[in-house]
Amino acid sequence: MNIYLNPKESEWDQILQRPRFDTSSLYDSVSKIISDVKSNGDEAIRRHTETFDKVKLDTLLVPAEEIEGSSARVSEELKAGIKEAHRNIKRFHSKQLCPDSFEETTPGVKCWQKTIPIQSVGLYIPGGSAPLLSTVLMLGVPATIAGCKEIVLCTPPSADGSVSAAILYIAKLLGIEKVFRIGGVQAISAMAYGTESVPKVNKIFGPGNQYVVAAKQICSRDSVAIDMPAGPSELAVMADESCVPAFVASDLLSQAEHGPDSQVILISDSMKVIEEVKEEINLQLVKLPRKEIAAKSLESCKLIQVKDKQEMVRMVNTYAPEHLVIACENYSELAAMIYNAGSVFLGNYSPESAGDYASGTNHTLPTNGWAHAYGGLNMDAFVKKITFQEISKYGLFNISASVIAMAEAEELEAHRNAVSIRMKAE
Amino acid sequence: MNIYLNPKESEWDQILQRPRFDTSSLYDSVSKIISDVKSNGDEAIRRHTETFDKVKLDTLLVPAEEIEGSSARVSEELKAGIKEAHRNIKRFHSKQLCPDSFEETTPGVKCWQKTIPIQSVGLYIPGGSAPLLSTVLMLGVPATIAGCKEIVLCTPPSADGSVSAAILYIAKLLGIEKVFRIGGVQAISAMAYGTESVPKVNKIFGPGNQYVVAAKQICSRDSVAIDMPAGPSELAVMADESCVPAFVASDLLSQAEHGPDSQVILISDSMKVIEEVKEEINLQLVKLPRKEIAAKSLESCKLIQVKDKQEMVRMVNTYAPEHLVIACENYSELAAMIYNAGSVFLGNYSPESAGDYASGTNHTLPTNGWAHAYGGLNMDAFVKKITFQEISKYGLFNISASVIAMAEAEELEAHRNAVSIRMKAE
Repeated sequence: MNIYLNPKESEWDQILQRPRFDTSSLYDSVSKIISDVKSNGDEAIRRHTETFDKVKLDTLLVPAEEIEGSSARVSEELKAGIKEAHRNIKRFHSKQLCPDSFEETTPGVKCWQKTIPIQSVGLYIPGGSAPLLSTVLMLGVPATIAGCKEIVLCTPPSADGSVSAAILYIAKLLGIEKVFRIGGVQAISAMAYGTESVPKVNKIFGPGNQYVVAAKQICSRDSVAIDMPAGPSELAVMADESCVPAFVASDLLSQAEHGPDSQVILISDSMKVIEEVKEEINLQLVKLPRKEIAAKSLESCKLIQVKDKQEMVRMVNTYAPEHLVIACENYSELAAMIYNAGSVFLGNYSPESAGDYASGTNHTLPTNGWAHAYGGLNMDAFVKKITFQEISKYGLFNISASVIAMAEAEELEAHRNAVSIRMKAE
Repeated sequence: MNIYLNPKESEWDQILQRPRFDTSSLYDSVSKIISDVKSNGDEAIRRHTETFDKVKLDTLLVPAEEIEGSSARVSEELKAGIKEAHRNIKRFHSKQLCPDSFEETTPGVKCWQKTIPIQSVGLYIPGGSAPLLSTVLMLGVPATIAGCKEIVLCTPPSADGSVSAAILYIAKLLGIEKVFRIGGVQAISAMAYGTESVPKVNKIFGPGNQYVVAAKQICSRDSVAIDMPAGPSELAVMADESCVPAFVASDLLSQAEHGPDSQVILISDSMKVIEEVKEEINLQLVKLPRKEIAAKSLESCKLIQVKDKQEMVRMVNTYAPEHLVIACENYSELAAMIYNAGSVFLGNYSPESAGDYASGTNHTLPTNGWAHAYGGLNMDAFVKKITFQEISKYGLFNISASVIAMAEAEELEAHRNAVSIRMKAE
């Protein structure tokens, strides 16, 4: 943990700098797998799965019976927890749907915008010892609310070829039938280009390691849209003396345990808070099963004292954290000044982990400073908006001078002609 | 022009195939310019401008007096046309703003989503003999409605170092003060990384040649968001015997004159329509100043007869055109079945050029099949949505079992602890 005392504003960029992760060095090796899957389909997937996941697969699609039977293999507590989270995520995301807009911009010129679900989407859920079951909810719930016709889910198989029962249980809950036991670059390639078993999708969502990230970037050049650029997870906490240092420490640790490259920052106007949080981190850290990962991440953790609340806000907007906890007395007032952050947690009883799982907000959020330009995943990501226009002859007459003048200025005579030929008609 | 009679559905992909444009072969040369601008700032911009635009620049920023004086150099007709288009584009885009959403997902758990303008955006406007002045409106109007704090506009200088008066006039109309006489890769690099003169922006919008497209792709990996992938412009027309062949021909030609790689497709259930449109194209083509460009594009033009309306709709949804004109009697009914297209023009009096300039819809649309996943540019592109949550102790209690069960299943003990430590507190 590194403590900074009242750093000058000119030093902020340096202090807040993130580690650079450039996946382009992986492009060659990743591109080879992509081309292989593109050319050889399922056979290539089986080959790469044997190499990377150490398992020989027969069918890639998880059979309906296995999905059906998953419920018996998930504890009642977890099922209840999943249902509660599902309900809240569904509620919040349903509210995000925006009515279609209509405007008669000029008499006879009717324009409107219609929201249409992306027809086919692919959800990638990383595996490992503890599969990210919450991510199935975070991606699957908005996809089903949007009405995407086809939802494909890929997740890597474990060594015996099986897939996490909790993931299957959630797939069943959401009505997702096309679950494939495929991981890594081969999963992204399969969804991007389609194979005998796996349908080609229009957009791929979901987190993954740097190979998965590189594969998404490469495939997004020519074949498939992707959710957003990805980087290591981040948390910034703004805390004043109204905070509970033990709570703040628990939030910083919950971020740190994600991985050794997690970014953890505390910004406070009180040295007392910084000292107490630091102490609490050390107390809580030793009890964690993932303490080695968290300790590694904490090496680059920054505890920054600034002179006042205004400076706290400015620093956060400069950094643009993925997650922001505001543990300050006047949190509403401060929240109103934040314009660069992914998701904001207010007060002493809004831990980041609530939003990671069950409060209703999405946990797929912009990392690595992308919060300057992107919001988190929401309903907009699963739909597209098509514009329509219906113009009467009178309407076209009303805007004809404008179209003609501008087409002339752009030296596009045929554009002009498409209007004038209609004006000349009986 | 190539005529296809009742092609089998299995042949559609082949017939509708687009030319492949892979800009990655340009990445090396483009990356060099980007690195140069990143390291050497304004000096590098001046050097590349001298090479590519054949002009030695003094200041890169267009002086306020030049913007102010632009009005005198634009014809009254064009100014009136611009104002009319501005009014319509502003009306339609203002309607697209969506109210912020709020939901108490569980008692004590309040979640909301707030729309916030992207703070700084860069607009790229290509130059050439006839600068794309309409694009200044299409990008600048939503940026100003969104409330983006900083709007930077780059456009290449002509040989005497000047910038199109019409572009400056529109900049003035929209209150855009930061106009730079910079084009090509050097403009994209300057806005992506910032230089002594040019501010770094969060997102870059606008069309350009393949070098500009490659530069946007490269910079979007690590520094800046971009609007959408770009390809040659496209138009598909669905026409039945209610259409006016001369009108349809004028629309196809207005697309064809954009460039030799423009994609032009007519789909009809009537061979009579196809023959008449073909004849009309030949009649109208010879009169066009850009007839050589249009003729080149028409070489790959496809006139496709299909058996009925259902097949027309299916073919369009397979192709996912940037622009779609529906010149059919029951156009409303057919429009309701379209789910893959950028912008749709209904009936005989809605030419594509109306939407290119003045009806109110945006002309920045997904090409190259990207309409499968993307809609056209709209207000969403200039804002981001930040989620907030405010949870009371009671609210956290209500979702605590869910968070704890899911955190346990994901083996993230510190996530669990962030909730349980709060539940244990007095």
